[in-house]
Amino acid sequence: MNSREFFQKIKQKQSFLCIGLDSDPSKIPEHLFSSGDPVFNFNKQIIEATHKYAVAYKPNIAFYESQGVKGWTSLQKTLNYIREIDPELFVIADAKRGDIGNTSRMYAKAFFETMDFDAVTVAPYMGKDSVQPFLMYEGKWVILLALTSNAGADDFQFLEEKNTSERLFERVLKKGREWGDQDNLMFVAGATRAEMLADIRKIIPDHFLLVPGVGAQGGSLEEVAKFGMNNQCGLLVNSSRGIIFADKGKEFAQKAAFKAQEIQVEMAELLKGKGLL
Amino acid sequence: MNSREFFQKIKQKQSFLCIGLDSDPSKIPEHLFSSGDPVFNFNKQIIEATHKYAVAYKPNIAFYESQGVKGWTSLQKTLNYIREIDPELFVIADAKRGDIGNTSRMYAKAFFETMDFDAVTVAPYMGKDSVQPFLMYEGKWVILLALTSNAGADDFQFLEEKNTSERLFERVLKKGREWGDQDNLMFVAGATRAEMLADIRKIIPDHFLLVPGVGAQGGSLEEVAKFGMNNQCGLLVNSSRGIIFADKGKEFAQKAAFKAQEIQVEMAELLKGKGLL
Repeated sequence: MNSREFFQKIKQKQSFLCIGLDSDPSKIPEHLFSSGDPVFNFNKQIIEATHKYAVAYKPNIAFYESQGVKGWTSLQKTLNYIREIDPELFVIADAKRGDIGNTSRMYAKAFFETMDFDAVTVAPYMGKDSVQPFLMYEGKWVILLALTSNAGADDFQFLEEKNTSERLFERVLKKGREWGDQDNLMFVAGATRAEMLADIRKIIPDHFLLVPGVGAQGGSLEEVAKFGMNNQCGLLVNSSRGIIFADKGKEFAQKAAFKAQEIQVEMAELLKGKGLL
Repeated sequence: MNSREFFQKIKQKQSFLCIGLDSDPSKIPEHLFSSGDPVFNFNKQIIEATHKYAVAYKPNIAFYESQGVKGWTSLQKTLNYIREIDPELFVIADAKRGDIGNTSRMYAKAFFETMDFDAVTVAPYMGKDSVQPFLMYEGKWVILLALTSNAGADDFQFLEEKNTSERLFERVLKKGREWGDQDNLMFVAGATRAEMLADIRKIIPDHFLLVPGVGAQGGSLEEVAKFGMNNQCGLLVNSSRGIIFADKGKEFAQKAAFKAQEIQVEMAELLKGKGLL
């Protein structure tokens, strides 16, 4: 899927919602534990109930990895189920990987060959040769961390460079746009700093942004659209806990669908407001 | 294991060698493919032949992850085998993880609870709350990326801060030493830039450094010791491909042992030269 096709999908669904599958076993409804694979069972019901309102899903790999082999099995089954219910859903491995070239090649193999994700989130600290192996796959995407939504973002990402006054996250954007293009590279830009999206748009007007932090982390969708939306939408806004853990009872999936729909309706309005629908 | 105990172990073995288990299935000897788990079989023979010369092993997680569930099984068996052959060997998950707090907690759980590694390598880009969850485990270690051995290190790690002229990797060292202490935090400092170890030692004289890049990546052990060794050794030098892929024939394990011993002998000399043995 290239960026133009992605925009078509957004218009068709009137949504730029990505649902984060941070499926923490300690938070999923108790009644699911009678099944053999409660995490997959949870994901399946969430996806079944919400997929009409979303263009993407983003399993947070840590939550599967923490369960060992069992977790990787749940993850693979989840990915298969998403492909089955709608082959056009965009599926992101939120893995924050990145290592020297020969090692990043192995991570790329893990997420793009062994598993068949559409995109993987990559950490920039180790530079070009740690990112490039992920960009070698036709039709696959890298989503490079630029400005994250957590408090720790302040520790390094705002460091200003001596000669240019360019901040570290801005350098990441500039380097990143040399390494990939708008059809294989997106950037992570946190919603908890929505006003920064204006600065980000000065550097990368056309790239898609994956925006986490709406919902549980406190970011506002309206602000994100105001500062970050471009004329191809250019946004993929993630919500995880706010949707998938909306309720812990037997009705959890319906409640999740209700939350997802609520966001989708707001997104449709924002797309209309920008003249994109 | 704290840093003092680690130094005792180094003196006892006259070695500060870490052997990297970058066990790429496409590079391991063909005759091993008649067994059910060639990667584990390879690791087992390498460990059996080399453990006398090393204080640590470092499975490179990407190489296991790229094999899916099968790879995670090989990894767990490898870890079990290391514990069996010598419970005092230090085992590092070279995983370069790091995410927002609730997610890093899951990665920490994966490597310190679900599996029982002694240490995990962590990427600093997302700051304090992405690193701290790994530091909450008594007796476990974080090895934080500071200055890496690859070409891409130049893209961001040398960025100089406006007011202080401090480089990014130096800021990582300074922040890191606030987050952890010398008994639960080491730093990655690449051997391909050995002269930089002198600058690093100005900031963290006492912390252990994990030094990759000796061997296949071109770093010199003598230079590393010259600039990086402190009065508790303070070094853990990794070699991966130079040892484990020394030979592709039936004698691969003996050849690996020979290479490991060669390095151990040089390390013993360097420790003596510094008056530490």
